Amino acid sequence: MRSVAVIGAGKTAFGAFPDRDLRSLAVEAGEKCLANGHVAPAQIESFYLGNFAGPAFVGQNHLAPYVSTALGIHGVPATRIEAACASSGSAFFHAWAEVAAGIYDVVMVVGVEKMTSQPTARVSQILAEAGDCSGEMKAGSTFASLFAMIARRHMHDFGTKKEHLSAVAVKNHANGALNPDAQMRKVITLEQAMNGRPVADPLNLYDCSLVSDGAAAVILAPLERAAEFTDKPVRVLGVAQASDYVALDQKESITTFPAVRRAAEKAYRMAGVTAADIEFAELHDCFTIAEIIATEDLGFVERGCGGPYVFAGHTTRTGERPINTSGGLKAKGHPVGATGVAQICDLVLQIRCQAGERQIPRHSLGLAQNLGGSGATCVVSILGAA
Amino acid sequence: MRSVAVIGAGKTAFGAFPDRDLRSLAVEAGEKCLANGHVAPAQIESFYLGNFAGPAFVGQNHLAPYVSTALGIHGVPATRIEAACASSGSAFFHAWAEVAAGIYDVVMVVGVEKMTSQPTARVSQILAEAGDCSGEMKAGSTFASLFAMIARRHMHDFGTKKEHLSAVAVKNHANGALNPDAQMRKVITLEQAMNGRPVADPLNLYDCSLVSDGAAAVILAPLERAAEFTDKPVRVLGVAQASDYVALDQKESITTFPAVRRAAEKAYRMAGVTAADIEFAELHDCFTIAEIIATEDLGFVERGCGGPYVFAGHTTRTGERPINTSGGLKAKGHPVGATGVAQICDLVLQIRCQAGERQIPRHSLGLAQNLGGSGATCVVSILGAA
Repeated sequence: MRSVAVIGAGKTAFGAFPDRDLRSLAVEAGEKCLANGHVAPAQIESFYLGNFAGPAFVGQNHLAPYVSTALGIHGVPATRIEAACASSGSAFFHAWAEVAAGIYDVVMVVGVEKMTSQPTARVSQILAEAGDCSGEMKAGSTFASLFAMIARRHMHDFGTKKEHLSAVAVKNHANGALNPDAQMRKVITLEQAMNGRPVADPLNLYDCSLVSDGAAAVILAPLERAAEFTDKPVRVLGVAQASDYVALDQKESITTFPAVRRAAEKAYRMAGVTAADIEFAELHDCFTIAEIIATEDLGFVERGCGGPYVFAGHTTRTGERPINTSGGLKAKGHPVGATGVAQICDLVLQIRCQAGERQIPRHSLGLAQNLGGSGATCVVSILGAA
Repeated sequence: MRSVAVIGAGKTAFGAFPDRDLRSLAVEAGEKCLANGHVAPAQIESFYLGNFAGPAFVGQNHLAPYVSTALGIHGVPATRIEAACASSGSAFFHAWAEVAAGIYDVVMVVGVEKMTSQPTARVSQILAEAGDCSGEMKAGSTFASLFAMIARRHMHDFGTKKEHLSAVAVKNHANGALNPDAQMRKVITLEQAMNGRPVADPLNLYDCSLVSDGAAAVILAPLERAAEFTDKPVRVLGVAQASDYVALDQKESITTFPAVRRAAEKAYRMAGVTAADIEFAELHDCFTIAEIIATEDLGFVERGCGGPYVFAGHTTRTGERPINTSGGLKAKGHPVGATGVAQICDLVLQIRCQAGERQIPRHSLGLAQNLGGSGATCVVSILGAA
C-alpha cells in the first residue's frame, strides 16, 4: 500500500440556506477544494459522493455524476456511497483505498446533504429510514428516542449523569462559537444545557445535533506526488470501516458500538499508534451521549468513564485531548452526508495550523470518527502532519 | 493488479412477489451465492450492496449492513453503492478493484430492488429521480419519454425503424421464455410487438422493461485462490466504470452514450480483446432502443447500424453474437439495483455451460453492459473461462 495524503480540502458554511440547492452546495465545496489543492477538474481520476438521502430530501438520486459533471469532471468513475450518517466517511475510506492500492492517483470525495427544505417531522422520518424500518422504526422510534434509550442505559450501568451529557453540549457550543462556518455560534451555560426543551428524555434540545444544509470536499493523492499540488499535504495514517447490526435490539449491548471498536483497532494498527497518542479528535456527536460513548469505544478512556472525562474538562480546547474543536455536529451542524468529509476537513485545518481562533497547540495527530445510524457503520480515520 | 475470478453466483427469480420483502430477497440470493461458491459468511472480508431506491420503494435506507448482518457477515466494511440502474454494476466494479488491488481477497456483492410494492405512477416518479430533477424531470419527463426521444432521434438520423425496436423485444421474449427465473416467459410475434399498447411514442409496452422484485449476488476472489472454493471459477478479464451528464439536454448527442464508449474502451484494453472477440453479451435493454444503441457504442456494429443488425437475427441465440440470452431486462425483469449483478450471474451461467435450454455453443467470452439513467453511469464487464 502506498502512503496517501489529503492535498486539498474545502467546505461550505453549514446552516439553513433556503436559497441554495444540493448541487450548488456540493459545487461550492468542490470548487473550494480544487482551488485549495491546486488541482484542475481534468486531473481527477475518480470521484466519490457521500450522500444519505438526496432522493427523499430534494427528489434527486443518481447524485455522483450529477455533481461531478457540474464540477467539470467528466468520464471518470463517479460513485455515490450511502451509509446513513457515515456516508461520506465511507466514501473517504473507499477513495483512500483506491489511492493506497495504486488504482488511481488523484481522487476527489464530496459529501453533501440538503435537509432544511423538508419540515421537521419529515426530516425525522427520513432519518428514521437509517434504522430498522421493519422493527424499531415501525414501532415508532426516532433516532432521538433510540439515543435516549442508549443514554438511559449508560446512566443506569455506569452512573453517567445529565450534567455529563450537558457538558458535551457546553463544550461544543463554545467551540462552534469560534468557527465562522458553524451553524450555531452561541455560547451556552451548563444550566442552559441542562434545561433545554425536552426531546426524548433524558435528551433535550441541547443534546441533539442540528438539521443542516452543507457540503465538504477533499482530494487525495499518493504522498509521493503531494508536492506537485500543495506545500501543506496532510498524511492519512490509518483508516478503517466496520459494520454491525442496524437494529438496536439485535445488539448485545447498547452502550458500546462494536463497529467503532473494530474500526478504531484497525486504524490504530495501520497508523502504528495507540489511543493514547491521539492529540485531538472530531467525534460523531449526533447526540451528546454518542460523543461520550465514542471516547470509550476509541479507548481514550475506560468503558463507562466518558461522562466524568468530558465533565472534568479534559476535552475542551485547553484540555489534554480537545474533541470537536469545530463545534461538532452539535454546533457546527450535521448535514448528514457531508459530516464524514467535514470532519476530515476540520482535522486538516488543525494539522495545517489554519483553525484560527480555535487552533489548538498540539495538532499533529488527529482522529475522526464517523458513525452511521445507531452504530451499524463506523469509519475511523487518523491523520497527521506529512 | 491481480487476476480476479467470480467464485460464486446466486439469484432469486425475478417477478412480482407481494409476500417477499427486500431483505428476504437479498438474503436468498446471498445464501445461494455463498452455497454456490462454497464460502462461509465469516470468510467474506468486504461486502457491497447495489441498490437504487430502497428508501423510496420500501422505506429502508442504510441497506448494506442491514443485508450483510442478515447473511451472518459481521464487522467487515459493508458499503451501499447507488448509481441508478447501474448500482450493482458499479458495486461489482468496486469489489473487483478491491480484490485486484490486493486490499481484500474474498468480497461479496449483492444487488437488490423491491419495486412492486408501489403503484405504477409512484414507480415512475421514483425512477425519474435518476434523471435531472431540476430540469427534464421537472418538465414532466419520465424515463420512457426520454428514451422515446432517443428512439425518435435514432430513427431520424439513421433510418432505424419500429420493426427494429420490436425485433429486440421478440428476441428477448423468446429467450426469457426459456429462463425459469424470468419474470415474463411469453413468446411474442413481431406483429404483437409492433402493436403493443402505446407508452411514449414510438415506444409501446413491448419496448419497455419490467417493474420487478429480485436480487442477485456474486463473490469475487483472486484467481490464484479460486480453486480453494470452486472448480468452476470464471475470470474477470476487464471491467470499467465511466460517467457522463445526467440530463439529456446537456449531451452533445442523444443517440450515443459516451460513458458506454469510454467504459467499453477501458474494459477491452484491460481484457486485451476487441469488440469483435466478444462471443455473447448481456446488454442493458431498459428500452429496446437502448439495446440497439449499446450494440453500436460497444463497437459490435457501426453507429446507426444497430437496428438492422438485430432485425437480421445476428443477436438471437443461434446468431453470430447472442445478446440477452437471459431474456434481458425486457423479459427476465429489471429490479433496478439487482440488474448489474444479475447480468454477471447470467454470463457466469453461460461460461460455466449451465444455462440449460438457452445455453449457447460459443460461451467462453462474454460482456455485460449496465447503464444508469439515460447514460450518466455505465459499467462494462468482460468475463471469460478461467
